[in-house]
Amino acid sequence: MYDVDLKNFSAVEIVDLIEQSDDHDRQIIFRSLPPDTATTVFEFLPFHFQKNFLDALPVEDAAKLLNNLSPDDRTSFLEELPSKILKELLQLLSPSERIVTLQLLGYPENSVGRLMTTDYISIELNWTVGDVLEHVRKFGHYSETISVLYVIDNQGVLIDDILLKDFLFAQPTAKVSTLSDYKVISVYATDDQEIASNAFQNYNRNALPVIDDKGVLLGIVTIDDILMVVEEEFTEDIQKIGGSEALDAPYMATPFFELMQKRVGWLAVLFLGQTLTASAMAFYQIEIEKAVVLTLFLPLVISSGGNSGSQASSLIIRALALGEVTIKDWWKIMQREIYAGIFLGLVLGLIGFLRIAVWGHFSDIYGLHSTLIAICVGVTLVGIVLWGTITGSMLPIILKALGLDPATSSAPFVATLVDVTGVIIYFTISYFILQGTLL
Amino acid sequence: MYDVDLKNFSAVEIVDLIEQSDDHDRQIIFRSLPPDTATTVFEFLPFHFQKNFLDALPVEDAAKLLNNLSPDDRTSFLEELPSKILKELLQLLSPSERIVTLQLLGYPENSVGRLMTTDYISIELNWTVGDVLEHVRKFGHYSETISVLYVIDNQGVLIDDILLKDFLFAQPTAKVSTLSDYKVISVYATDDQEIASNAFQNYNRNALPVIDDKGVLLGIVTIDDILMVVEEEFTEDIQKIGGSEALDAPYMATPFFELMQKRVGWLAVLFLGQTLTASAMAFYQIEIEKAVVLTLFLPLVISSGGNSGSQASSLIIRALALGEVTIKDWWKIMQREIYAGIFLGLVLGLIGFLRIAVWGHFSDIYGLHSTLIAICVGVTLVGIVLWGTITGSMLPIILKALGLDPATSSAPFVATLVDVTGVIIYFTISYFILQGTLL
Repeated sequence: MYDVDLKNFSAVEIVDLIEQSDDHDRQIIFRSLPPDTATTVFEFLPFHFQKNFLDALPVEDAAKLLNNLSPDDRTSFLEELPSKILKELLQLLSPSERIVTLQLLGYPENSVGRLMTTDYISIELNWTVGDVLEHVRKFGHYSETISVLYVIDNQGVLIDDILLKDFLFAQPTAKVSTLSDYKVISVYATDDQEIASNAFQNYNRNALPVIDDKGVLLGIVTIDDILMVVEEEFTEDIQKIGGSEALDAPYMATPFFELMQKRVGWLAVLFLGQTLTASAMAFYQIEIEKAVVLTLFLPLVISSGGNSGSQASSLIIRALALGEVTIKDWWKIMQREIYAGIFLGLVLGLIGFLRIAVWGHFSDIYGLHSTLIAICVGVTLVGIVLWGTITGSMLPIILKALGLDPATSSAPFVATLVDVTGVIIYFTISYFILQGTLL
Repeated sequence: MYDVDLKNFSAVEIVDLIEQSDDHDRQIIFRSLPPDTATTVFEFLPFHFQKNFLDALPVEDAAKLLNNLSPDDRTSFLEELPSKILKELLQLLSPSERIVTLQLLGYPENSVGRLMTTDYISIELNWTVGDVLEHVRKFGHYSETISVLYVIDNQGVLIDDILLKDFLFAQPTAKVSTLSDYKVISVYATDDQEIASNAFQNYNRNALPVIDDKGVLLGIVTIDDILMVVEEEFTEDIQKIGGSEALDAPYMATPFFELMQKRVGWLAVLFLGQTLTASAMAFYQIEIEKAVVLTLFLPLVISSGGNSGSQASSLIIRALALGEVTIKDWWKIMQREIYAGIFLGLVLGLIGFLRIAVWGHFSDIYGLHSTLIAICVGVTLVGIVLWGTITGSMLPIILKALGLDPATSSAPFVATLVDVTGVIIYFTISYFILQGTLL
């Protein structure tokens, strides 16, 4: 039983306490909170705790809690839910809160619209500085940020953003229009969240206004929400690049069989893809029996293709995510990666050739034709590494062009693709070089 | 020649213009800017542009520019430079700016201290609300953020942080002490930047005070700087996970041979590691000659180990970065991954067994002993996948415990490590199963 008096704890301390407690204590702590604190604590918690608490609350309390949440936090909680539960929870909202929530949920996933809050302060050009400060004192309590105020016209179209501090330094009788430079950075509600993240970094802001295609101010998006989204998206990217589906909860908090479900699918697909290496090799079975020594270097040559492909794909995945390159740059990227493949292939090919030729010179482990084998491996490495860099760099671009997530072209996926073709490249090159000697 | 009049452009528009121009136009645009605009534009630009511009400026102008930069932006520019150039540039700073800069540079790389700015507003408990607002009007222009003010005692120890809006809502004659709750979230200057990133997400702030171990307020760190750092660190992580060194500039802006230098090192190390597969296989050469059919499935089994290892390593790398797990949890993680390895290995083993047994039943491609071969592959897969998940999950933890970056345990690195041992596992298991029949 939990017996600490929570009255003297801040919301932040309670969040820490909840994250460190076990399931049972957690529920008791959360239920013992006064409604205001409960709302703040709920907003700070990760999704899987939020869901646990809401599931355990009586319907009436759940409704109160949801209605008290700020619109952006409510939306990001609801969008994680399966649509059936989402519908039930929407019923719990008051009509006005439901309208706001449905509107935010109407924007595409990963769009800025999903992150916006409608709690901001708008002002008009013909107000005085005194009017503005009076307005801020009256309505500022309910607003997420008051460091920037938004100037709109009578159609609701965004005209300017002015820092609160500019009003503090101005004469109370001055008009808003005298402070305005009529320049404003904004994002569209339908923009991808990555665009907002770039805008925050380029323009040094803590909040950005969100507009529709007519320029009407719909809400604001704050940098702390973007930071959270960026961290989440990055986690998904890394998990995909590693060859599993993105997890919905932290690694340790994900139940074992859910974790397996996220991992087994891709592994099985890659495994089935990889069985094609066995089929390819069966095709060369006669050559393999004649020149068993070739198989000694098979893992070496095909994995080098996989490695160079993983390298290229992760560089391009990240460059695409940051907007450094777009799918239109595909030809420039391909040219770069062709040169890169030839250069890297020549380096590895040379190392491979020397390793086998020198070793074979001093030992008879590789048989009579060790120099020829060394040539096979060296030439194959140039071909396979080149093929790896081309495949690795183009796959993310093709996926993006098809509207899929480039991060799906994971290191294991690229490696598998290159392995299968690598077998064919190796045995074909060896067939021509060794014809008349070993084969 | 560039002939647009830049007077009516905002700093932000000029940044866009510079990023889209060629090298020649870029220099002309930048030099034509008035000093104030040049400073703002410089702060917004990526490092490689900053360096280009500074290199091209006369020493006197470079000194002016550096002195005008805000302390945090100056520090993050300088820390990217080789130490020889750093020393030269430090000479250009005025004595007072040099002291601030050297102090910030004295904190470890990736520490909060490197990101802090000393431009903040501090107030004292016995001031009135009127005093505070007067003080903000006087000094607020020079401060990075004025939405939060910091209360310190006469020793400089941080006591509280109070929102500017709270002062706007208070009586001018009220004392600061009446608004204070004496609770403040702060970070240490020596803390890792990831800690600050977590704090921003947990506590919904746009700026956090930075203190030393005695609680003295040293500066503040703002969320936009953290967002930039977080994005940079993600990029480095993804590049490392893909098996290359982190790039210093965007993919397309990195000169070709610098890009090759970042990529060839790891590829060569992995290649040399991978040559051990050839050594391992040479050890089993007699068995391979007797049972060539075994080699058909070699790429299949060893790559499955690599794939499961890449999966596990990227999950753990990310969980470590987010602080979801620490190195102390290694045993809990190992247990999870042992169960995971057994489960995933059984699934792949079963698929592999069925694929070979059924195919071998209808064709004689795999020889007389196709069922025995299927058993070899099935059993090996359980062993290799288990070994892959253990290696993949423990390697990031071991690297972290040694003070190295867990992201260095890239997918290709794990795959190579597992490939070499995979060869040994496969042939050892096959040796025991096939003894008396094929071997």
